[in-house]
Amino acid sequence: MAIIIDGKKLAAEIIKDLKKEREKIKESIKLGVVLVGDSASALSFIKRKKEVAKELAIDFRVYLYPSTIKSKDLRKEVSKICRIPEMKGVVVQLPLPEKINAPTVLNAVLEDKDPDCLSERNLAKFYNNRSIVKPPTVSAVDFLLKKYRVNLKNKNILIIGAGYLTGKPLAVYFLNQKISFTVLEKDYKNQEKILKNADIIFSGAGKPNLIKGKSLKKGVIIFDLSFNFYHKKIVGDCEKESVLKKASLYSPVPGGIGPLTVAFLYSNLLTLIKNKEA
Amino acid sequence: MAIIIDGKKLAAEIIKDLKKEREKIKESIKLGVVLVGDSASALSFIKRKKEVAKELAIDFRVYLYPSTIKSKDLRKEVSKICRIPEMKGVVVQLPLPEKINAPTVLNAVLEDKDPDCLSERNLAKFYNNRSIVKPPTVSAVDFLLKKYRVNLKNKNILIIGAGYLTGKPLAVYFLNQKISFTVLEKDYKNQEKILKNADIIFSGAGKPNLIKGKSLKKGVIIFDLSFNFYHKKIVGDCEKESVLKKASLYSPVPGGIGPLTVAFLYSNLLTLIKNKEA
Repeated sequence: MAIIIDGKKLAAEIIKDLKKEREKIKESIKLGVVLVGDSASALSFIKRKKEVAKELAIDFRVYLYPSTIKSKDLRKEVSKICRIPEMKGVVVQLPLPEKINAPTVLNAVLEDKDPDCLSERNLAKFYNNRSIVKPPTVSAVDFLLKKYRVNLKNKNILIIGAGYLTGKPLAVYFLNQKISFTVLEKDYKNQEKILKNADIIFSGAGKPNLIKGKSLKKGVIIFDLSFNFYHKKIVGDCEKESVLKKASLYSPVPGGIGPLTVAFLYSNLLTLIKNKEA
Repeated sequence: MAIIIDGKKLAAEIIKDLKKEREKIKESIKLGVVLVGDSASALSFIKRKKEVAKELAIDFRVYLYPSTIKSKDLRKEVSKICRIPEMKGVVVQLPLPEKINAPTVLNAVLEDKDPDCLSERNLAKFYNNRSIVKPPTVSAVDFLLKKYRVNLKNKNILIIGAGYLTGKPLAVYFLNQKISFTVLEKDYKNQEKILKNADIIFSGAGKPNLIKGKSLKKGVIIFDLSFNFYHKKIVGDCEKESVLKKASLYSPVPGGIGPLTVAFLYSNLLTLIKNKEA
């Protein structure tokens, strides 16, 4: 019987703790969210973030720009938002339109106002294992691994898809911990064998029904990190019913890593504020 | 029969091309090398760099500091060296003494004077696949893969040891190219099976005789990236004689990746100079 991770419930517990942390901070806190265009996934991510902001008495401000905006102008806007009084954090909601130079826009977020850990200053510190905050997905995974006492040593660890917000930072997290792992990209021919041998899978492929129960080892642990719109529903990479027959622990989509990622975004925000006060 | 890569010969060819590039640059060029203490490997690396500098009419300046120097003071020294007239590049020779905070010292190297690509500004750009220069080891590997037309697709690619100058940047290089690979750390129990299945091995474990022919697949391609002092000799991770019986292509130590890494350090230096002129 698979244990299904209840990310919403766990996130609620984390947010409860964050509330206490929030109360200790006497200042008012603004969080700016930069949204370009109207991608469905971006809008969906923002909704949940807004709810949590309210719980934490954080003034959540959305700054909306048309998808025709130029990288240079967006960069300037982000810089301006960072300098608004009481603005303690700025989130540039991804994905950005393809023609936008995302790294240069993300670099406009000041290092100490970057709870997503996506500016290159923070990314490099994370790469060098010396950052104050980690990318929220990594924090969420790290939390779940500890919560469920998942031992990573001597396990066949598999990352499917080295995406910018999922597999890639997770690979860095394993590199920094000197943990053995495999990264699987979609065009690799030995997929089936590698899947079948995996003890712990982190999937960020972005491909509905990619992972089916029959391809898996009995007792496998699966963290689904993807977020796909499929037939008007949000799904991950796993075919849920069949995967549940094989997995011993399973983080589903929706309701798994997603809510935790939002919780850790706010955890990062409070960490950055406290770090500045110290 | 294994093809043994002659890194010295290939490096000489690259340096010949670099000479032409160098001649087009009318300015005089200084390269500053910061050496702390007297580690044998650091001294050995410097010797080769100095020879190449002479060939390229580059004024090679060594700045020597005692191993007792503090991180903060070393950082200041590096900043000062960056600002010396005609100083076009600064290399902080690794390894630094353990008590030195290496990332903060490396960050004192200005972005456009960092041919080693080790400041966090350049590392992050490399991570985001948008850097002007790549870490020299990565460039050397990239060069060899192209030179010998090694196809990475659908191959079992193995990185042994995620070291700061070898396996870790190589992992980022594969992540950026969306190539499947496995990172193997030393405490992993399934080492033998993974080694036996590998088609292409990059070894930066820093452990003499770790890789023996009997553990390998017939026809394997091996790039030995390590640099160990062993019984007063420089060796890599491979037991050369037995590995040669299995490998189809083999980059040995010494005389493999090392000379190429030095060549690409200078290639990076000239790239940075030309980029500033443009």
